[in-house]
Amino acid sequence: MTASAELIDLLAGIVGSDHVLVDADVTARYRVDWTRRFHCGPVPVVRPESTDEVCKLVSLANAFRFPVVPQGGNTGLVGGGIPVSAQGVVLSTERLLEVGEIDALSAQIIVGAGVILGDLQRRLRGSGFMFGVDLGARDSCTIGGMVATNAGGINVLRYGTMRRQVVGIEAVLGDGTVVSHLTGLEKDNTGYDLEGLLAGSEGTLGVITRVLLRLFPEPKSVATAFLSFDGVAEAVEGASLLKRTLSSLEALEFMLEPGLRLVERVHGFTFPRSTIPKAVLLVEASGAAAVVDDLGSACSQLSSLLSAEPAVAVGPTGRAALWRWREEHTASIATLGVPLKLDVSLPPRSIAEFLIELDSLSSPSPAIVFGHLGDGNLHVNFPACFPSSPTELVPAWAHVLEHDVLQLVTNHGGSISAEHGIGVAKVPYLSMTRSAGEIAAFRNIKRACDPNHVLNPGVLLAD
Amino acid sequence: MTASAELIDLLAGIVGSDHVLVDADVTARYRVDWTRRFHCGPVPVVRPESTDEVCKLVSLANAFRFPVVPQGGNTGLVGGGIPVSAQGVVLSTERLLEVGEIDALSAQIIVGAGVILGDLQRRLRGSGFMFGVDLGARDSCTIGGMVATNAGGINVLRYGTMRRQVVGIEAVLGDGTVVSHLTGLEKDNTGYDLEGLLAGSEGTLGVITRVLLRLFPEPKSVATAFLSFDGVAEAVEGASLLKRTLSSLEALEFMLEPGLRLVERVHGFTFPRSTIPKAVLLVEASGAAAVVDDLGSACSQLSSLLSAEPAVAVGPTGRAALWRWREEHTASIATLGVPLKLDVSLPPRSIAEFLIELDSLSSPSPAIVFGHLGDGNLHVNFPACFPSSPTELVPAWAHVLEHDVLQLVTNHGGSISAEHGIGVAKVPYLSMTRSAGEIAAFRNIKRACDPNHVLNPGVLLAD
Repeated sequence: MTASAELIDLLAGIVGSDHVLVDADVTARYRVDWTRRFHCGPVPVVRPESTDEVCKLVSLANAFRFPVVPQGGNTGLVGGGIPVSAQGVVLSTERLLEVGEIDALSAQIIVGAGVILGDLQRRLRGSGFMFGVDLGARDSCTIGGMVATNAGGINVLRYGTMRRQVVGIEAVLGDGTVVSHLTGLEKDNTGYDLEGLLAGSEGTLGVITRVLLRLFPEPKSVATAFLSFDGVAEAVEGASLLKRTLSSLEALEFMLEPGLRLVERVHGFTFPRSTIPKAVLLVEASGAAAVVDDLGSACSQLSSLLSAEPAVAVGPTGRAALWRWREEHTASIATLGVPLKLDVSLPPRSIAEFLIELDSLSSPSPAIVFGHLGDGNLHVNFPACFPSSPTELVPAWAHVLEHDVLQLVTNHGGSISAEHGIGVAKVPYLSMTRSAGEIAAFRNIKRACDPNHVLNPGVLLAD
Repeated sequence: MTASAELIDLLAGIVGSDHVLVDADVTARYRVDWTRRFHCGPVPVVRPESTDEVCKLVSLANAFRFPVVPQGGNTGLVGGGIPVSAQGVVLSTERLLEVGEIDALSAQIIVGAGVILGDLQRRLRGSGFMFGVDLGARDSCTIGGMVATNAGGINVLRYGTMRRQVVGIEAVLGDGTVVSHLTGLEKDNTGYDLEGLLAGSEGTLGVITRVLLRLFPEPKSVATAFLSFDGVAEAVEGASLLKRTLSSLEALEFMLEPGLRLVERVHGFTFPRSTIPKAVLLVEASGAAAVVDDLGSACSQLSSLLSAEPAVAVGPTGRAALWRWREEHTASIATLGVPLKLDVSLPPRSIAEFLIELDSLSSPSPAIVFGHLGDGNLHVNFPACFPSSPTELVPAWAHVLEHDVLQLVTNHGGSISAEHGIGVAKVPYLSMTRSAGEIAAFRNIKRACDPNHVLNPGVLLAD
């Protein structure tokens, strides 16, 4: 037990002794991340139930100078929610569970940081409204964690990332200051954009406790199409044309021949056209009933770029049959062994060349790439790079390969972290794409909000 | 001449002597704002032509501790671009005129801070792309000023404010640090959101020199409708329904009987329906050809709320005939004398009650209210409040009225500045809607970016 009995008493005085977890077995699930790459020793876990309690915890941390590590659903992939210090305290948001009434006039809802995305989605069902960000981790990830990491997903090109969904925020800054601006006005030029600053700050500036979220009208119809291309360049051009012509566009996913062949082999799916092409775009449009015609006519404008007739589906079964090709990529890759996974984004003009150069890197097996082409977000997977036991050491060449991929991304003007964040994992690489001046500005902003450096030290910026 | 000859030489050493304006006649237009309410004595005006020159100017200001006041098109209404100090130097962005190639694949364009909105619009004409923010001041206001004030306008409900348009930024922070992040990636979680922080910071954190702007596909069709309601509550509900059902919605403007009657009297327009109703919504939808049908069917769903049949126009002449009712409000009000104008926003649920209470305030004549109902943004005008000569003193009761209106806005959870910013004019009122904690956080962020307080002192935060 690292934390002193005195500290445990002080924490219990704030949240009640039932909500200071110290038993190593009980805290185990808070101390290792989803990837099992990041873990820490037996630190206490506190579970406040209000902004006021969070404020008192952060103030205590300032008085005693212990690190506070906010943790939502613990679904992050870069180690942003696991303490790096044995003196750290995990602040779990799991009791911040408020879900307000839907404000139909404003199309907004107040949501506590600990609310799980899937629970919010179920709450909205039948209301005529939907939430604009959706993720595979929907039944574990929390709204607070999604804001703190500026989560993305498949519908960013239509609705934006989490930052765009936050119209108001309540948070406790690192110095214990409570900020609460939940009026939800679309136009409100009264000071600096604290909402946008806290979104994506990975728990290093403040602990988000409540947010006022934007909602969107639930679409009446959805249509999905599978478009085949003879090459990446054609698919990129097709994606750009669709973005220009189809205002109902909601998803623009990208797959390549190696990944499609792997999915075919593992799952025995039948490809909707006679041969698997070099590249596929999975296109989804949603809106009024006319969306099917809109999608059809937008696809027909692309005919000179296509290598086969488009496959279009409207009903849930047909749409699911197209989506499973995309969705089974991750599991299919996992059948080959533990992969090296990198989440990057690139300017559209660089994507074709990046993929050619990626193939020339030295790796045990060729990369399988897929992702959200609509916003340049590629998931780069090298299958079977890592030992299957998490206790075995990662081979040195895997680190070299990771560095080389990120360097290639940098050379093409891309981002080394598209939607997963910097966390602990990518701190050594931040200077690849952000200048010394920008990093100095980040440090100054960090100091302005968290002068004693109590919030999530070691995350985003090196200590 | 306040500035020393030594300072003038140093400034000229950076930008060249042709671009340090000191003659009082030459600098006159930079030293008084559009409203004529804010003006200053004969300070120098410098006109850098690059980020590097801006960096040198800001560094000089830090060495000599003189205030730098960034100025774009000088179309602000709250005094944010005019020095409050006789030691100030105006930094005009008018030579930062770069306009890059349109990146059609990304739907983005690089634009210098000094580029005038109308010039950008003309550059885009025929390209298939448009810019998402439009304003009455389009032929004077600059892109840099629009970003710095997070400008809004009529299409915010479709495309967002200026903050949403900025996908990359280059700026010189108050401490002379150059930040430049112009990769334009939709997904890029690598550090704090400097773009969003600088947007709306009113020149107090950094001087914006270049931005990478988001473009939107130019719509193929536009349709406009005039909807009549028996009251404000019905119009607010109608607006909410339209936002929910019409994904092609682009503008949702709001007028009331007193304003419509004034426009009718001043201009002799014929109202499209037999009687002028209590409230009117001007609705515009844009998109594919089906947009006319979409608008028609969305309007028909509102029939129980309407007090007369909708008037729908598609061609430019018919649409202009509807729009002029909205556009002539400002000029019609001006025929009555110099008005007190306040730009506020309110949550939709509060608008009807706010307007009732507004009528009960003591004022020489009733308020004429119109605005952008789609985002709760109301322009409140009390006609003929001010002396017609700008040199005469504003009567004390006008200040009381201003305070009372803003207090009413605050009571209803609104914003005292929707799209115009705080500037100098609203500094005394900032604490009405932002807490002491939030203002303390703003000050800490200000100090982090501008430790010597050289950028736009007195604006947004009291000195």
